[in-house]
Amino acid sequence: MKKIIRKKKSNEVRIGLLGLGTVGSELANLIGINATRIDKEYGIRLNLSAAFVRDVSRKRNVNIHIPILTTNPDQITKNPDIDVVCECIGGNGFEETRQFILDSLHHKKDIILSSKKALALYAPEFIEAGNSNQVQIRYDATVGGGIPISKVFEASFRGDTVTSISGILNATSNYIYSKMENDQMDFSQALKQAQQKGYAENNPSDDVDGFDALYKICILTMLGMKRIPSPQSAIAQTFRNVELCDMQYASELGYSIKPLALADRVNGHVEYHVGPTLISNRHILANTFENYNSIMVKGNICGQLGFYGQGAGDKPTASAMFDDLLNLILSKQHNLFQGQEISSYSQIQLKEKNSKKYWRLSLLNEPGALANVTSVFAHNDVNIEKILQKNKHKEYMELVLITGIAKKHKELFSELSKNPSLKIENVLHVTE
Amino acid sequence: MKKIIRKKKSNEVRIGLLGLGTVGSELANLIGINATRIDKEYGIRLNLSAAFVRDVSRKRNVNIHIPILTTNPDQITKNPDIDVVCECIGGNGFEETRQFILDSLHHKKDIILSSKKALALYAPEFIEAGNSNQVQIRYDATVGGGIPISKVFEASFRGDTVTSISGILNATSNYIYSKMENDQMDFSQALKQAQQKGYAENNPSDDVDGFDALYKICILTMLGMKRIPSPQSAIAQTFRNVELCDMQYASELGYSIKPLALADRVNGHVEYHVGPTLISNRHILANTFENYNSIMVKGNICGQLGFYGQGAGDKPTASAMFDDLLNLILSKQHNLFQGQEISSYSQIQLKEKNSKKYWRLSLLNEPGALANVTSVFAHNDVNIEKILQKNKHKEYMELVLITGIAKKHKELFSELSKNPSLKIENVLHVTE
Repeated sequence: MKKIIRKKKSNEVRIGLLGLGTVGSELANLIGINATRIDKEYGIRLNLSAAFVRDVSRKRNVNIHIPILTTNPDQITKNPDIDVVCECIGGNGFEETRQFILDSLHHKKDIILSSKKALALYAPEFIEAGNSNQVQIRYDATVGGGIPISKVFEASFRGDTVTSISGILNATSNYIYSKMENDQMDFSQALKQAQQKGYAENNPSDDVDGFDALYKICILTMLGMKRIPSPQSAIAQTFRNVELCDMQYASELGYSIKPLALADRVNGHVEYHVGPTLISNRHILANTFENYNSIMVKGNICGQLGFYGQGAGDKPTASAMFDDLLNLILSKQHNLFQGQEISSYSQIQLKEKNSKKYWRLSLLNEPGALANVTSVFAHNDVNIEKILQKNKHKEYMELVLITGIAKKHKELFSELSKNPSLKIENVLHVTE
Repeated sequence: MKKIIRKKKSNEVRIGLLGLGTVGSELANLIGINATRIDKEYGIRLNLSAAFVRDVSRKRNVNIHIPILTTNPDQITKNPDIDVVCECIGGNGFEETRQFILDSLHHKKDIILSSKKALALYAPEFIEAGNSNQVQIRYDATVGGGIPISKVFEASFRGDTVTSISGILNATSNYIYSKMENDQMDFSQALKQAQQKGYAENNPSDDVDGFDALYKICILTMLGMKRIPSPQSAIAQTFRNVELCDMQYASELGYSIKPLALADRVNGHVEYHVGPTLISNRHILANTFENYNSIMVKGNICGQLGFYGQGAGDKPTASAMFDDLLNLILSKQHNLFQGQEISSYSQIQLKEKNSKKYWRLSLLNEPGALANVTSVFAHNDVNIEKILQKNKHKEYMELVLITGIAKKHKELFSELSKNPSLKIENVLHVTE
């Protein structure tokens, strides 16, 4: 074992990274950017001591000096100079990842995980090794990307019972279905586009055949129900099994088709389903598009809760791991949540926001009426994005306009108010 | 001061309630139901010692014995035998509530708040009193009902900056708008129905004129941005200002109208908006109906996150307060988040779920074909809820069926497979 790391300072936490791909690099940068502030706010010195990589010479987008870059994983997992291991290996080589995790735990290192496959398949082993070595395992980044779902489960449901969890958990399949629904692509076209954009692997089976979603619903069951289901005993229905006409028929009937995973707690077991699923169009889940994930959690007391965010992406995933890292360290230092740092609050001024607007006008049905009104918008620099004309009566029409973001709505209002041949019926805010 | 409470045991926490209405009663019941388990799991003895009420003789739905029921608030706020105060006063008399809160803080009691109005208007005073007396103020229940939003802010965004918060925060107005959009009621009809159902007060101004939403966006700004805005300096646009035709025109243009509040962080100030707002139909916020709330939070690193749940109701609110109570006590005992209690995990079996199904069939276009197929569904006890017939070619039609929840989909599949005049094109899961 190389002993390159200097003597540990008090309050110093020595961090080892397993993997320095896009997520690992982003996490390294987050540690670099925040280290000074974290030292000042919490008295914690984050020290990124070493990283395991496959290729030392590869160019990386990392803005922090890492003393040891090594192709030997033992330099992280078995190194007595490392306190916390952050596993950013990704999807491939989960058997090897399993060994890295077990080695880290057996060498009494707390660990932050990102590999859902290794966790879902070997959770009982990891938990036993964590318990017997009295170290922590945190794994918010394994499911829902940037959604802080494990933080929710840790601090909520204390007097409640989680009865059901469901979600859109696989960003790749959801991206494909979104393209099918919104751009009328068929599955294979949309998959190809996902691959070109880097959202799907060359071998996309884990994502599009439901395995990834199955692993994640198992992890959510662990978090929310404190029960470990075995994904080996379950069958996922492939997400490939949807044709464009199914999307269209579902839409006619008021549904969207989504790549869903769900787990319901039933006495003594968990009822699950993973596969393409019709969901009512106005449900939160049906309105989760592209690379976003949604997780719905039902409790006996609190009722239905929903959590939404980017399910994939380097920044959201690294952000979840960084929060896990800080929460882990703070929990060990016994000063998490003390007084909520309310002393650091300061006062701030509220100012009204400029925005897009919805205008509803009545105007006399006479030649040039429309041109007359729109020219008033134009010379007040208010751009018109959408227009709807309704001839309610012979004498006058209703005109509905959606504008761009503009500053001069007040000037516009004042000028239109003076026009005797129209009436301002309503003006409302529009969000982007 | 009456000294009726016996000597305090170690690990005992003596709780005083301010208010024993519907939320207070639900919280009392949660304490009663969970006390034994909490003692066993955490070694904490929850003791509900006293409650302040307006009328001692009123009948209440409380299943736990409360030693002191008193009309004297000092018995809670100034009683040295009370450790933690839970304020369940509700919307009325916020000036009095302010005094109760300040008295509690000055007598060194930690406090769990539910009154958003008192908090939004007097936050700087409360925070100063909390800091100078070294006690905690927790207030998850003041915004978003059962949504665990303060837990999210406490444990997330540690390397990130919150740049924007928006949400549907007033359940009453959202109920009214939902009735307008879905049942074509006008505002005053829908308000009347909300009042009849107990969702709106006799004087509904705080809710429907935007004040309640403004208080809540100010509280979210405190939680997420650690800045205290003053709601006195801001103007909310009333939610009454929407006619049924506005809903309809918005819908034609692809929008829903919602009672929105938002706050964007800008250098040195917060840009806000509270009022009726058009939101794209397929946005999460546009699909938040009835008494539900949604809160969207944007971070520089994690991107857009969303949180959804019941924004009003006794159980969700009491559940949020109970979690605040436990988190407060655990944080003081320095054992929050230690090892995540992974030793209590156990394994559980996964079983496939029965469900509603979507069936797509092709069948020959011959007399009796439809009756023939539907009778197979019927004698397998599979109820048909929706049916769609598409004549794609002269010789055959496509038939799309949505069934009820049924057990015999396998038997049905096997029987239909044997029928030479039809082909099963697809079978998909449907959620309720």
